[in-house]
Amino acid sequence: MATRPARKLDTPEQSVREANHRFYRALASLSLADMDAIWLHEDWVECVHPGWDMLLGWEEVRASWVRIFSSTQRMQMEIHSVWVRVEGDVAWVAWTEQITSTFERGFDQALVQATNIFVRRAVPPDAEGHGGGTQWLLVAHHASPLPAGQPPQVQ
Amino acid sequence: MATRPARKLDTPEQSVREANHRFYRALASLSLADMDAIWLHEDWVECVHPGWDMLLGWEEVRASWVRIFSSTQRMQMEIHSVWVRVEGDVAWVAWTEQITSTFERGFDQALVQATNIFVRRAVPPDAEGHGGGTQWLLVAHHASPLPAGQPPQVQ
Repeated sequence: MATRPARKLDTPEQSVREANHRFYRALASLSLADMDAIWLHEDWVECVHPGWDMLLGWEEVRASWVRIFSSTQRMQMEIHSVWVRVEGDVAWVAWTEQITSTFERGFDQALVQATNIFVRRAVPPDAEGHGGGTQWLLVAHHASPLPAGQPPQVQ
Repeated sequence: MATRPARKLDTPEQSVREANHRFYRALASLSLADMDAIWLHEDWVECVHPGWDMLLGWEEVRASWVRIFSSTQRMQMEIHSVWVRVEGDVAWVAWTEQITSTFERGFDQALVQATNIFVRRAVPPDAEGHGGGTQWLLVAHHASPLPAGQPPQVQ
């Protein structure tokens, strides 16, 4: 008996989850080009890395990723308890992650609670008229250390 | 010479700052009634206290304030680097705060980085037809410890 192919969900929530997945993948691949594509490049975007002061504006935020990626050889993540909320053209995602960062002289493990805020923006089609539509772009990232132990569960 | 009274700013950003001030005041006065008035009472609101797991839904979030307020005798705060962004009916505020909490058996000082997310909701007039309009209600709070030291400045 033929089974019907699963219908692709294309809700705003699903699009936000995909945007957030791109953020993990950019981290895991230490890809500055992917970070460039994920963030909105405005002077009001903000970023708090675990234990860092808040960074304001794309220039500072990008410089922090340059610094993190250049000092890290490998970053592995286990993602838990992803939670998404969409309100019009703004959405936010909360999750926990167990990060293992490998540096030249050792490695570090941390349990992190993170919040990402995205805004939906119109994207024009390319020169050949392809693409376009809307895209969820990252405008705020707040990550903070949790006490070590079992990854927490959203209750 | 008569001076003109300062014109009250009534921009969305100003309204969000005032909503966030109500949040500090609720903390400083350990007032559960004020917390009740500030938050949206939905099962999707979320809260991360410094070092705690994420709490989901107003019931859990409110229970956490009950617990914090009942074990705290006094909470004093110095607020730094408040930063606000409004996008339509959603807004977020980032700031740092130096919190001194006094308990029955001592006190604790912490430097905290916090993000609040608000949504703007219609509020109906009361039975006598007064009030109504819109109100910014808190839907997400993420507070995390920063290393002790001088309060950081947004650059």
